[in-house]
Amino acid sequence: MVKSPQTPLVAVIMGSTSDWETMRHGVAILEQFGIAHEVEVVSAHRTPDKLFSFAQGAAERGIEVIIAGAGGAAHLPGMVAAKTALPVLGVPVQSKALNGMDSLLSIAQMPAGVPVGTLAIGRAGATNAALLAASILANHYPAIATALHAYRDAQTEKVLAAPDPRELG
Amino acid sequence: MVKSPQTPLVAVIMGSTSDWETMRHGVAILEQFGIAHEVEVVSAHRTPDKLFSFAQGAAERGIEVIIAGAGGAAHLPGMVAAKTALPVLGVPVQSKALNGMDSLLSIAQMPAGVPVGTLAIGRAGATNAALLAASILANHYPAIATALHAYRDAQTEKVLAAPDPRELG
Amino acid sequence: MVKSPQTPLVAVIMGSTSDWETMRHGVAILEQFGIAHEVEVVSAHRTPDKLFSFAQGAAERGIEVIIAGAGGAAHLPGMVAAKTALPVLGVPVQSKALNGMDSLLSIAQMPAGVPVGTLAIGRAGATNAALLAASILANHYPAIATALHAYRDAQTEKVLAAPDPRELG
Amino acid sequence: MVKSPQTPLVAVIMGSTSDWETMRHGVAILEQFGIAHEVEVVSAHRTPDKLFSFAQGAAERGIEVIIAGAGGAAHLPGMVAAKTALPVLGVPVQSKALNGMDSLLSIAQMPAGVPVGTLAIGRAGATNAALLAASILANHYPAIATALHAYRDAQTEKVLAAPDPRELG
Amino acid sequence: MVKSPQTPLVAVIMGSTSDWETMRHGVAILEQFGIAHEVEVVSAHRTPDKLFSFAQGAAERGIEVIIAGAGGAAHLPGMVAAKTALPVLGVPVQSKALNGMDSLLSIAQMPAGVPVGTLAIGRAGATNAALLAASILANHYPAIATALHAYRDAQTEKVLAAPDPRELG
Amino acid sequence: MVKSPQTPLVAVIMGSTSDWETMRHGVAILEQFGIAHEVEVVSAHRTPDKLFSFAQGAAERGIEVIIAGAGGAAHLPGMVAAKTALPVLGVPVQSKALNGMDSLLSIAQMPAGVPVGTLAIGRAGATNAALLAASILANHYPAIATALHAYRDAQTEKVLAAPDPRELG
Amino acid sequence: MVKSPQTPLVAVIMGSTSDWETMRHGVAILEQFGIAHEVEVVSAHRTPDKLFSFAQGAAERGIEVIIAGAGGAAHLPGMVAAKTALPVLGVPVQSKALNGMDSLLSIAQMPAGVPVGTLAIGRAGATNAALLAASILANHYPAIATALHAYRDAQTEKVLAAPDPRELG
Amino acid sequence: MVKSPQTPLVAVIMGSTSDWETMRHGVAILEQFGIAHEVEVVSAHRTPDKLFSFAQGAAERGIEVIIAGAGGAAHLPGMVAAKTALPVLGVPVQSKALNGMDSLLSIAQMPAGVPVGTLAIGRAGATNAALLAASILANHYPAIATALHAYRDAQTEKVLAAPDPRELG
Repeated sequence: MVKSPQTPLVAVIMGSTSDWETMRHGVAILEQFGIAHEVEVVSAHRTPDKLFSFAQGAAERGIEVIIAGAGGAAHLPGMVAAKTALPVLGVPVQSKALNGMDSLLSIAQMPAGVPVGTLAIGRAGATNAALLAASILANHYPAIATALHAYRDAQTEKVLAAPDPRELG
Repeated sequence: MVKSPQTPLVAVIMGSTSDWETMRHGVAILEQFGIAHEVEVVSAHRTPDKLFSFAQGAAERGIEVIIAGAGGAAHLPGMVAAKTALPVLGVPVQSKALNGMDSLLSIAQMPAGVPVGTLAIGRAGATNAALLAASILANHYPAIATALHAYRDAQTEKVLAAPDPRELG
Repeated sequence: MVKSPQTPLVAVIMGSTSDWETMRHGVAILEQFGIAHEVEVVSAHRTPDKLFSFAQGAAERGIEVIIAGAGGAAHLPGMVAAKTALPVLGVPVQSKALNGMDSLLSIAQMPAGVPVGTLAIGRAGATNAALLAASILANHYPAIATALHAYRDAQTEKVLAAPDPRELG
Repeated sequence: MVKSPQTPLVAVIMGSTSDWETMRHGVAILEQFGIAHEVEVVSAHRTPDKLFSFAQGAAERGIEVIIAGAGGAAHLPGMVAAKTALPVLGVPVQSKALNGMDSLLSIAQMPAGVPVGTLAIGRAGATNAALLAASILANHYPAIATALHAYRDAQTEKVLAAPDPRELG
Repeated sequence: MVKSPQTPLVAVIMGSTSDWETMRHGVAILEQFGIAHEVEVVSAHRTPDKLFSFAQGAAERGIEVIIAGAGGAAHLPGMVAAKTALPVLGVPVQSKALNGMDSLLSIAQMPAGVPVGTLAIGRAGATNAALLAASILANHYPAIATALHAYRDAQTEKVLAAPDPRELG
Repeated sequence: MVKSPQTPLVAVIMGSTSDWETMRHGVAILEQFGIAHEVEVVSAHRTPDKLFSFAQGAAERGIEVIIAGAGGAAHLPGMVAAKTALPVLGVPVQSKALNGMDSLLSIAQMPAGVPVGTLAIGRAGATNAALLAASILANHYPAIATALHAYRDAQTEKVLAAPDPRELG
Repeated sequence: MVKSPQTPLVAVIMGSTSDWETMRHGVAILEQFGIAHEVEVVSAHRTPDKLFSFAQGAAERGIEVIIAGAGGAAHLPGMVAAKTALPVLGVPVQSKALNGMDSLLSIAQMPAGVPVGTLAIGRAGATNAALLAASILANHYPAIATALHAYRDAQTEKVLAAPDPRELG
Repeated sequence: MVKSPQTPLVAVIMGSTSDWETMRHGVAILEQFGIAHEVEVVSAHRTPDKLFSFAQGAAERGIEVIIAGAGGAAHLPGMVAAKTALPVLGVPVQSKALNGMDSLLSIAQMPAGVPVGTLAIGRAGATNAALLAASILANHYPAIATALHAYRDAQTEKVLAAPDPRELG
């Protein structure tokens, strides 16, 4: 398919609206980089049919990377990966009792055959899922490559310019 | 529907043939109790469509309890529970690296709305899933109640008749 | 026995009044579904005799499913299961120091022979214990089946109707 | 009561004959110290009534310390402690999947009101339960005090006499 | 030695004054039971010599049980046990980062030869250490036995008299 | 750059030759799919300069995805990601003492800004890293897409054709 | 080289300014002991080149001990150790989701060949890293030895002078 | 004191002869580097007095670094550090049930005031303790610096010369 700049390249899904507080940090990166994307709540357990139709249709409508965030049993990323051959990146949302250790294991410990690229628990993971999506896209979308390198240069500059911590009081 | 004694009441599924070594201990209980059952390999990640059609059709062909065993990310029990309102019992199969702690958390930590009754990791869990299925059925199938009580009496007798451990050498 | 609509089908017990904050979420489901139930504080460690008489009498007064919530060493569900052949569902209450990991292991890791169907740690687990009880009963009580399906349809609808998270601000 | 030298002062119980391989190391200490004791298999889950009658009768037949070993959910020590005011020492038997971490938490994390003195996982714990029982008894039984001090002196001597490890090859 | 009622039978030590918030719950039990006791801050790491002289002198001044609370690396209970043959009970104080899991393992996982009877993490553990000390003493001090039984009866009564949780609102 | 079919698109690196036993399962996938690749031992700790020059030069010699396997502290994937904006996939090699839990956390818990897509511990993770690399490449290399879909179809077929486990004996 | 009293002997680095809240407790010790030191933010992931030049130049400008604090994947201490033969002490900063367990394992579980001396998670670890640096330097800098012994004597005195905890209210 | 080349600079102690299998890997490094050292079994729990006299006398007989290995509760390194201001490096020996996680936490989680530099669990930790000791000594003993740099260069060379893993078969 010929992709217009408006065709979403990345889909960001999450199991519940309560995951937005985490996932918004990834969406902010996509916006900053000018990467067309879609955002949706898809629950593996409460809307399994929507999960299937979402995953099955993603490739043909031009999506190149799927980012899925979920907490606890966190089946969303793995089940999306079961229904599409697109690259799926999983964000373990910090859970209440076990602080996201359950989310992390449920997402990372996929069996051979159906991969999910897992990021860190919580906000850092959401940010990094978007950055990894940008890395993937940057190989073939020069504008995204430019934005990604600018972002990384900027964050390096920011650390280099950090004040002596002793001045922080 | 009118159920003949041959209509399976329990379905035992597992994510891979390698899980049979664990799940066979539950199937042995069902056989011992004379509970009609079916056994099948259904992989959440490699055969998601079969998982959906299996789960969707289970109730109407007379299944009353589903036992699902899986290891690692272990999405099988939870995804079956997402597609059926039948009671689903999950058996965390002992995984290689993390000894089943990943399986346990992935199965037990389901979000509110879609329950999985989780048993112990490994062989004991498979046995107990079948016993819990028998308990569930025993409320309405007197022959199963009889078999269950006989089993429990026998295991109590066996412990009571245990020799003084010091004679074990 | 002939059961009147007032005969409790489900017993909800908990080790301490402090567990009510968790277990109430399960009781709310039972109420919403119109499932007759009883609620009681039974401590495995401080009232072991009551635990035994409770468990021993449950079947004959018509109880079909027992839900037991406990935290820490959390012996209540397993000891009830030792004294009755009724299906027992365990809710690991979130503990102070270990966040319920102790509760989860103490409830789930039962030895072969005496099963407890274990749910998630905390509030989600309490809700799901009631939903699993409803699933169990739904096989033979059409009104409960109707309520259960309505509940599940409603929760699916609710997710499908979720706003675009980006509008959440 | 007047205790003859043959009246058992310590009861060693375990949930299953398979625990004997662990618990024998404690019994060996009791034998070495000449502490009269009894040994029995009592399963919290498979013989709960025996557990209750055992615990209830222990004090009146002269038992002063109870040692209870169990693995997995490991309810035996805690339930014995619920039924007797005698000191109960718990030995977490190493479990198959979780290496005894489940046993340790199930035994140690008792709620306020009903204590179990918990020892290390496995063989060392069984040995130490017997040594702790000896310490408890030594306050009032001079012969046990003598045996205990001799044991401790001997183990100190043994370490002091250890060869230079480099000679071990 | 002949012990007057004022001779302390129990010593309660802790690694830091910050542990008092935990250990006070055990001391309250000793006071309630009328058990003569002493309370002291002894740090294994900052006052090792005091630890040694404390442990070495405890038996001869009439102490029959030592309760030691510590958090983190938590060497206090084990090192006291290394220097005395008296029964030592360890209370894992809840630590900041790891919530007392470090304290629990450091206290419970003693090697064969030098036992520490370990209680639960935190306040419940402190309470139970005192109750276990009372159990130990009750075998030979009738007044303590009376107090212990009264305490246990009262806590049973309190649970039996608990209101229906649904009335808790 | 114009890439010939011989230009490696994927680099597979590992911290030690002992990791090859794990990583070979990923390389086998790349070979099966006809994806040009390079394989090298690069140790973050013992050859940090090689790590830097490797990472810095990867993009300009045509690499589009880097797969890095490491165990224990497992800094390799994260440090490669620090030195290149290419997508980096990390494989936690199963470690001796902690079974790869250390590897998993060290690789997955990257801070915001520098992502590593983490796969499962051990062999499954190595296989899945290669499959995820194939997914990433498949968006722009039709031959890889074809191979990937064939692989996934074949694995689905294999499960669907699995014998009734009861015939496994 | 001839070191003036102003030549820093210890370098304290941290991955982010947010780690200062932890690391300041170590710097306070260095100041109290009069140990010349430098403090800098160096991010392994965001400023890898600075990390390399920092580590490579440390020895020749007179640094004798490096203290590195980091949280989460926490590669900073290990990567510094990869680039210098100076002794490196690592402080696991308490992370948000996993409370520093990830930091601890990432820092401690270094492979054979490149050591990092790891301290406790959080503030205590930062304090102790500075004290361990002082211990290392004290072997050859008498003034530091004097300050260290004074510090340790003072902390012992402080515990010995602690009030009876019961007076704390 | 004036140190002859035969005066031991490093003391290697371990809690039991069974720890030698681990600790020998560190001693091999000391031998290879020509660092004079002593090796001894000192048990914190079974020979506490020897531990105290060992620690107290270490500095005055010329020891500059102490390496202490222990498993399980693993109090040896921390208690040595309590009795000497010399730098103490701790090696968590892999324990039977918990694989050294208990050893690691018991050694690393020392309270502020008494540091232990903790290495990795097991053999790698023993090797690295010796290398870290060499790093510490290298600041003031040129021959050790030379040996250390040669060792590190050699290990870098060895990795650089590693064959293509695909040739490993």
